Amino acid sequence: MSLKYAIIGTGAIGGYFGGRLAEAGKEVHFLFNSDYEHVKQHGLRVDSVEGNFHLPNINAYNNTTNMPACDIVLVCLKTTQNHLLKELLPPLLKPETLVVLIQNGLGIEAELAECFPNINIAGGLAFIGSGKIGPGHISHTDFGRINIGMHQGDGLELIEKMKQDFSENKVLIEITKNLAKARWQKLVWNVPYNGLCVVMNCTCDKLQAQPDMRSLVLDLMREVIEASKACACSLPDDAADKMLAHTDNMTPYSPSMKLDFDQHRPMEIEAIYMLPVKEALKHGYHMSKVEMLGKQLKFIQAHY
Amino acid sequence: MSLKYAIIGTGAIGGYFGGRLAEAGKEVHFLFNSDYEHVKQHGLRVDSVEGNFHLPNINAYNNTTNMPACDIVLVCLKTTQNHLLKELLPPLLKPETLVVLIQNGLGIEAELAECFPNINIAGGLAFIGSGKIGPGHISHTDFGRINIGMHQGDGLELIEKMKQDFSENKVLIEITKNLAKARWQKLVWNVPYNGLCVVMNCTCDKLQAQPDMRSLVLDLMREVIEASKACACSLPDDAADKMLAHTDNMTPYSPSMKLDFDQHRPMEIEAIYMLPVKEALKHGYHMSKVEMLGKQLKFIQAHY
Repeated sequence: MSLKYAIIGTGAIGGYFGGRLAEAGKEVHFLFNSDYEHVKQHGLRVDSVEGNFHLPNINAYNNTTNMPACDIVLVCLKTTQNHLLKELLPPLLKPETLVVLIQNGLGIEAELAECFPNINIAGGLAFIGSGKIGPGHISHTDFGRINIGMHQGDGLELIEKMKQDFSENKVLIEITKNLAKARWQKLVWNVPYNGLCVVMNCTCDKLQAQPDMRSLVLDLMREVIEASKACACSLPDDAADKMLAHTDNMTPYSPSMKLDFDQHRPMEIEAIYMLPVKEALKHGYHMSKVEMLGKQLKFIQAHY
Repeated sequence: MSLKYAIIGTGAIGGYFGGRLAEAGKEVHFLFNSDYEHVKQHGLRVDSVEGNFHLPNINAYNNTTNMPACDIVLVCLKTTQNHLLKELLPPLLKPETLVVLIQNGLGIEAELAECFPNINIAGGLAFIGSGKIGPGHISHTDFGRINIGMHQGDGLELIEKMKQDFSENKVLIEITKNLAKARWQKLVWNVPYNGLCVVMNCTCDKLQAQPDMRSLVLDLMREVIEASKACACSLPDDAADKMLAHTDNMTPYSPSMKLDFDQHRPMEIEAIYMLPVKEALKHGYHMSKVEMLGKQLKFIQAHY
């Protein structure tokens, strides 16, 4: 039996991954916001290093009440929109539905579980370089895989089927047994580069090139690693140096938060900074510099 | 016997305090840098809330080799210039000379003592609102006192005489027995406001008004207070809240480091951030957020 998919938030992430599923002939229902009218007329267009495609007729919606209940709901909103899920999700849910939060940060599945204590929830980390370059128009430049793990309820079988569906069309799904650890791992990169690129108003390569800032990037990474240990998700100590070296090899790059800042869009400060700080504090570790960066970002956002 | 004074660095601080001594008829020798020619022609002008004055003929120099040895040398340079003292001071010194560093930060007397282990060294903290608004032209808007304490050697008698001299012309000298503690005390204000006004590119009132930033200001103050305790200069815990409330009552204000930043002049990052961090670490306390702010400032300065 083939799966029904819902894509909640059809932007850089949802547009690419949902688009690949639809291109492969799967049944996908896309939720749009401001792009809805444009997509109804012109369809969804993806310019991709893996091959461009255009889907002239997709199942496009501008609210979830008209959407069918689905087997898998991929939430691809920015976490700053997660307060909307309480209203958006119910029409899409049947008892076996798996909701997958393909988002940045930490603690977001737990927040959702507070609202929906009885549904199946997974989390996903997207490793992809993509952006929305126009209404219903996505550009995909790098990578394109998702690391998925369960948070609450059942869903591993559905994840296996989804992995199979994606594998037909250029997307690799990796299944992790420890979602929390995968989220901490991604924070090792996200915490220093997202925030510092905004506060220092520059790209990653500029941070890497100046010795004091390079040292601060490492300080922040080490706080994240210490926090992961306190939270029983121990990352190895050399994760910081490895990530720093890895970033040296990237082309000059603006993290997603820097793009949000440049466009005066809300930044994912709670999910990437404040929730991880709270989680670590609960386990007795204070990420002092991470907290400081979060506060600086909140000041900046308050003055958009 | 009347004292001979040298003013090393005749700007916002040296111009005002040295000017008050000269106005009172004391023998004062002023070192200038770029303003030398202008002052030779036009003298030193001070616009002051305590009464304007103009000194058409002052003892102006553009190097110290032509200056006489003096009883008291008031060093009013920015600490970023302190590497010059090794060359500047010797012509001014006789055995009883007292060198007073009227500067911001911590650990600067110790640095000078390394170069000059046998001279008399004091430190001074200026509480004044003043700025240089043109060549040989100082504007004085607020306060006007100096808190002075010994660091090395003898000098208390000279300080008492200087206090007397200043008292004749509107400047209050307060003598402290614990210079280090006075320096930590001033850092409670200087550390948060100087650096954050630069990194966030705003005046103090903007920092005060936003709750996350206000909380970060307090975090930084508390780190300074904890450091003072580690260094046996215990400031009281309520110094943070008091300083925060005090700043609420100030008119919108750019700290000196923000003015330096705006003019692309070197910032006093070592004296206000890096040396205090080092000193606290020596005593087992890590000012994590203060260190982070210092590193951010060094990045900013590297990109002037």
